[in-house]
Amino acid sequence: MSKGVTPRSHDYARWYTDVVQKAELADYGPVRGTMVIRPYGYAIWEAIKEAYDQRFRATGHSNAYFPLLIPKSYMSREAEHVEGFAKECAVVTHSRLRAADEGGVEVDPESKLEEELILRPTSETVIWAMYKQWINSYRDLPILINQWANIVRWELRTRLFLRTTEFLWQEGHTAHATEAEAREETLRILNIYREVAEQEMALSVVAGLKSDAEKFAGAVETWSIEAMMGDRRALQAGTSHFLGQNFAKAFDVTFRNEANEEDYVWATSWGVSTRLVGAVVMAHGDDKGLRLPPRIAPIQVVIVPIYKDESKVAVMEAARQLTGSLENAGLRVQLDDRDTVTPGFKFNDWEMKGVPVRIEIGPKDVAAKQVVLVRRDVEGKSTLGLDQVIQELPPLLDEIQDCLFKQAQAFRSTHTRQIVDWEEFREFMEWGGFAICGWDGDPASETAIKEKTKATIRTILEDQEPTDLACIYSGKPAKHTVVLARAY
Amino acid sequence: MSKGVTPRSHDYARWYTDVVQKAELADYGPVRGTMVIRPYGYAIWEAIKEAYDQRFRATGHSNAYFPLLIPKSYMSREAEHVEGFAKECAVVTHSRLRAADEGGVEVDPESKLEEELILRPTSETVIWAMYKQWINSYRDLPILINQWANIVRWELRTRLFLRTTEFLWQEGHTAHATEAEAREETLRILNIYREVAEQEMALSVVAGLKSDAEKFAGAVETWSIEAMMGDRRALQAGTSHFLGQNFAKAFDVTFRNEANEEDYVWATSWGVSTRLVGAVVMAHGDDKGLRLPPRIAPIQVVIVPIYKDESKVAVMEAARQLTGSLENAGLRVQLDDRDTVTPGFKFNDWEMKGVPVRIEIGPKDVAAKQVVLVRRDVEGKSTLGLDQVIQELPPLLDEIQDCLFKQAQAFRSTHTRQIVDWEEFREFMEWGGFAICGWDGDPASETAIKEKTKATIRTILEDQEPTDLACIYSGKPAKHTVVLARAY
Repeated sequence: MSKGVTPRSHDYARWYTDVVQKAELADYGPVRGTMVIRPYGYAIWEAIKEAYDQRFRATGHSNAYFPLLIPKSYMSREAEHVEGFAKECAVVTHSRLRAADEGGVEVDPESKLEEELILRPTSETVIWAMYKQWINSYRDLPILINQWANIVRWELRTRLFLRTTEFLWQEGHTAHATEAEAREETLRILNIYREVAEQEMALSVVAGLKSDAEKFAGAVETWSIEAMMGDRRALQAGTSHFLGQNFAKAFDVTFRNEANEEDYVWATSWGVSTRLVGAVVMAHGDDKGLRLPPRIAPIQVVIVPIYKDESKVAVMEAARQLTGSLENAGLRVQLDDRDTVTPGFKFNDWEMKGVPVRIEIGPKDVAAKQVVLVRRDVEGKSTLGLDQVIQELPPLLDEIQDCLFKQAQAFRSTHTRQIVDWEEFREFMEWGGFAICGWDGDPASETAIKEKTKATIRTILEDQEPTDLACIYSGKPAKHTVVLARAY
Repeated sequence: MSKGVTPRSHDYARWYTDVVQKAELADYGPVRGTMVIRPYGYAIWEAIKEAYDQRFRATGHSNAYFPLLIPKSYMSREAEHVEGFAKECAVVTHSRLRAADEGGVEVDPESKLEEELILRPTSETVIWAMYKQWINSYRDLPILINQWANIVRWELRTRLFLRTTEFLWQEGHTAHATEAEAREETLRILNIYREVAEQEMALSVVAGLKSDAEKFAGAVETWSIEAMMGDRRALQAGTSHFLGQNFAKAFDVTFRNEANEEDYVWATSWGVSTRLVGAVVMAHGDDKGLRLPPRIAPIQVVIVPIYKDESKVAVMEAARQLTGSLENAGLRVQLDDRDTVTPGFKFNDWEMKGVPVRIEIGPKDVAAKQVVLVRRDVEGKSTLGLDQVIQELPPLLDEIQDCLFKQAQAFRSTHTRQIVDWEEFREFMEWGGFAICGWDGDPASETAIKEKTKATIRTILEDQEPTDLACIYSGKPAKHTVVLARAY
């Protein structure tokens, strides 16, 4: 199998799919738009998942599990919610197959369900139906629940990790006695999203509020983090919603407050998904393949022994010893002892898979008690004494983590521009990048911008008062400073 | 809310449901037969999951994720497989809702799918369709993949954890170059299943082979572990299947072996599910509620402060210090500082939830620098010096773990009987227990036994040659020694 990928400059979309498949992260499944997450890709997801899960627990959240199947009628309880999701709902209508006359199987018409069931596109409805049973008094609040689950949204145009008919995610659903508490929770989670994106995935993100047109169907406010991909487009990398009392009202969830008055419960919901794996590919990858931040890399160090027949025993002995020592030091290390491929093939293979550090050991290295060390994040080789490897590797991995983050920050900074002129904005959107502009707050301007440039308001910068700023489209006084970009 | 449960002797099934709901392990979901796993129940599942996951990794397996949605046609590829699962398949037929004239939403008839999709009742078919793409040569083998996923089987009679329309499980699917390797894998996993059941869940299990009538639809051989519940019925607590080349042939998965010949791939699959949480409830629970083995208990120690207004400050101070010390020692500890309920209510509550150790601290205890310690596994209270708690608790938790396991072993042993007389067997099955009997190997005898006594062959004891033993039903010479019992 050739390991080359389409260069990014030639066709970015094709490069992405090549890398995802050749690094063995994922494949398309048999049903259109479904995805098989292969072990290497799943291990990256597990590392991301673990980083978030730890922080959710540390802030008082518990995991639970709610059903996949939702009664059709639940979807229409919250008006905006059904508007947002009805068109992408997979529907279960029957509960049985039977043998077909012409061979094979067919759906048994007698198993038709009385009420059709929806595969969850998100779980607010089923969760709030349960919260109604669990909540009576302020003593039952807050409820801080998260679930790791699969989600089904019938997508017409799909791409591995970024947009698939089924994906994996976490969805937090919290219930609070006061508006202030729910708002605080919304931002606490946004901050966790940002922290993991930056510290673990080495993504450079901008955080802020969504416009009404871009917010979650059923939310009062949606906050998000937005990362810049290698083609300068934005990718929404996590959203945290303040739901107000919308779902509490839709599902009639009230509680007795401390003053013994009946009130509706306040809510948040928030999620990150397997699309983050796609974000890592696109934020850090190059024409050789993936470049993985060490903290989420399934393999942090690969050891490639280089030998001829007469040197094999000595080289393999040294390679095995080093592998064992690094494992004992808590590093995720792999010895590539394949006999069937050349060292050159192995180099390409592990570069494709984005392993942060490659260690080469040949007979001369064994004699000189040294190894050759190759970083994936920057060009160049170096040699290191064999007895220094254990000591040097952990700080080196930290350095690589930091270097990838700084590269991502520099890239976003380079391709972010404050723009006040419409023509400059149009041209900039053709090239790609984050434009910081004024917006008059009018949905009509937002729609016009999208139609003319394909750019959307990624986020409203709440901390930047737009004094003296005009709307990039209408020229009227700006109500908000916003980040505009084309997005995934 | 009253915390009492129906006594086991009065109505075991009702006792079970009471405990599951009152200990807040799970609730029924809005769709018939679906289950909501609440945080406390989910934490038990996470502990079980982690115990298995570690052992799967240690034996070379990787996690991955395959799609929920399976083309209908895949189900009929393997003849026995479709026979086994067709009648419980939930079927997706449409991909969109639309607004209904009379309000609410309805299924959009124009979104009808060309080929209906099945929600996975198990994933052999979709996984072997992918393995066909990934396997060409012996170098691609073995593939040792596991997935943690949700499963849908349309069940008519459901019970929380034990049998629900949707449940969570792990399913391992391995591909091997030789029959011997696949058979070895099947038994390696069976052994892991037994080890975790015994060491972590404190279940006493018997392991062996299933009869053809009871094996997995599509397997050559099914091995299982069977645990005895508190009502002396059996519960299948894990199955490991040797699939031979059945699925490789159904999905045409061949490989070039080392001799450069084309051959079909050998396979195994294996799974444990959330029904294990039900097994823990029924193996250890008593009329006060759950009794959890410390290794899988979400809370190992609960601290209940007992005070009046004037002693509150001193007692809470001591309770908080102790909580902190135990947390630092790595124990899962909870301080019950609720002001709204009495200590007696708290005792009942934590007994219902099966917390292994309760520590009570009152003003006299603070003065005497001691605590009162109550075990959940045996009757009786003891006092312990405050400075000894940290040192004594870890070995005490080990002792409780061991004690629950020994109780389960003794219970199974007491209710297991070698039986050669049919009338005695019939009576024994009415009472309940594991009967060790001869079986002539004839499916007709097996069916007759089931019809007359509701007992099934739980497992064939491979290591017990039935010399001089007659079939319990036919009286003919026995081919196998089997364990017969009524089962969940």
